[in-house]
Amino acid sequence: MATDPRTAIPPLDIERFRDCALELADEARNQLCVLHATAFEVKRKSDGSYVTSADVEIEQRLRAIIERRFPEHGIIGEELPARAPQAEFQWILDPIDGTEDFVQHMPTFGTIIGLHYRGEPVVGVTDVPLLDLRAHAAFGLGAFDQNGRLRLTDLAPGVSPAQTRLMLSARANFISHGDDGYRFDLVTRHYPNHRIYRSCYAHLCVARGQADAMVEHGNKLWDLAAVRILIEEAGGTYQMTQHLSTPSGPVLGAIFGKPSVVTKLLALLSEASG
Amino acid sequence: MATDPRTAIPPLDIERFRDCALELADEARNQLCVLHATAFEVKRKSDGSYVTSADVEIEQRLRAIIERRFPEHGIIGEELPARAPQAEFQWILDPIDGTEDFVQHMPTFGTIIGLHYRGEPVVGVTDVPLLDLRAHAAFGLGAFDQNGRLRLTDLAPGVSPAQTRLMLSARANFISHGDDGYRFDLVTRHYPNHRIYRSCYAHLCVARGQADAMVEHGNKLWDLAAVRILIEEAGGTYQMTQHLSTPSGPVLGAIFGKPSVVTKLLALLSEASG
Repeated sequence: MATDPRTAIPPLDIERFRDCALELADEARNQLCVLHATAFEVKRKSDGSYVTSADVEIEQRLRAIIERRFPEHGIIGEELPARAPQAEFQWILDPIDGTEDFVQHMPTFGTIIGLHYRGEPVVGVTDVPLLDLRAHAAFGLGAFDQNGRLRLTDLAPGVSPAQTRLMLSARANFISHGDDGYRFDLVTRHYPNHRIYRSCYAHLCVARGQADAMVEHGNKLWDLAAVRILIEEAGGTYQMTQHLSTPSGPVLGAIFGKPSVVTKLLALLSEASG
Repeated sequence: MATDPRTAIPPLDIERFRDCALELADEARNQLCVLHATAFEVKRKSDGSYVTSADVEIEQRLRAIIERRFPEHGIIGEELPARAPQAEFQWILDPIDGTEDFVQHMPTFGTIIGLHYRGEPVVGVTDVPLLDLRAHAAFGLGAFDQNGRLRLTDLAPGVSPAQTRLMLSARANFISHGDDGYRFDLVTRHYPNHRIYRSCYAHLCVARGQADAMVEHGNKLWDLAAVRILIEEAGGTYQMTQHLSTPSGPVLGAIFGKPSVVTKLLALLSEASG
């Protein structure tokens, strides 16, 4: 088995990267708190999703900070072209995850920031400004929210699927790339106590143990940029379940959360496809 | 067609009832803001759902206010036995809708308060303390949130189901009383851009036009105690779609929101069952 490439990164560097990620999250939060209360321009992208002047403006500000601090690093963002796509370190930015909620003035949107090294996550931050919630994690340094370290407790073996608290993407995500939605139907049938929130807030809830697990599907790279390191550093399990190459970048799915729940969900889905 | 019994209520009385409902919501909010930050006792009820010492304590306080102000009125609450079940005026109370969220310290729980007269809603309040959100309505007096009057704008005819923002109950609700979940499956297939939140917050979003419509199913009386008057006074449509009598009270379903969306949803479900 190959050595995890992240073990070669000096720990002091990881701390510097984490501090930069937190600075980026602060900047995004400041901007979002101002912009959500003002007039912003709303457009639809070619895939029907929303983009606002706020998405673009915040991504530009975050990019400027990264370019100043780590000029050799790459940057992949939802709204602007990639910078230095061959670099080993890649910052991955979703300035507003849940733009539809932002447009509707619902407080469940947020910012997702990740730093990956040779494809493996090193730092992750998910921030929900209007709910004053943030979780962050860095490789080997643990996961934290504003109250301290996050440590997931596994669900007791006797808890039934009906009492398991599951988070899901909307069915729109599951059918976005050739899947006929069987995963959505299967999971909602076996785990009827589910909620569907935006990725950013849902990831926070799973990392903090407020939900037991999540099934994501049909996501872009930036949607999942922070969650794996958050979950793994909190003691949970993260398993990629979809990785499609498309002209507009990879399409990803994953199941993550409390270990025994992830195991059961993976078994359910592998039975169905096997 | 029979005259609406509510037209016989003097408008000044409706204002008094509304003011009392707002006083109840203030009391519940004050208590919830204190209690959610302190230790409260959590138990599971016979149906597997949670109840906390906070649910019971708040319901007792709300009942005391109603009994003092309107001793002849009936009271139906989630946690305590009915008072004066034959009275024409019935206060219907859900001190904490989304107790599971309250237990997990997620801010999407809230209080639902309704006053019904001969089964027709006269006053409704839905309050989400930690998000500082409230909507209220009274028969003939309009619907309001903290920013002013709520007036729903219908969705433009060209908006596709995929771009319609739908709110839903979890599948657990749809299968709770003999239904096999076909309504959940049908609606999630045709309207893939859905979110699943707790009733209280979801009703607020629909009344404020942040979501286009909602499909509720398998609910108790108190879950839907406020939403019909909120939606109708905001210019939306409310249609009951389920009314089962059970030993523990009626089980209800409804579709409500922007008129053209409600019409399409009703047609979808009637085609499927016809």
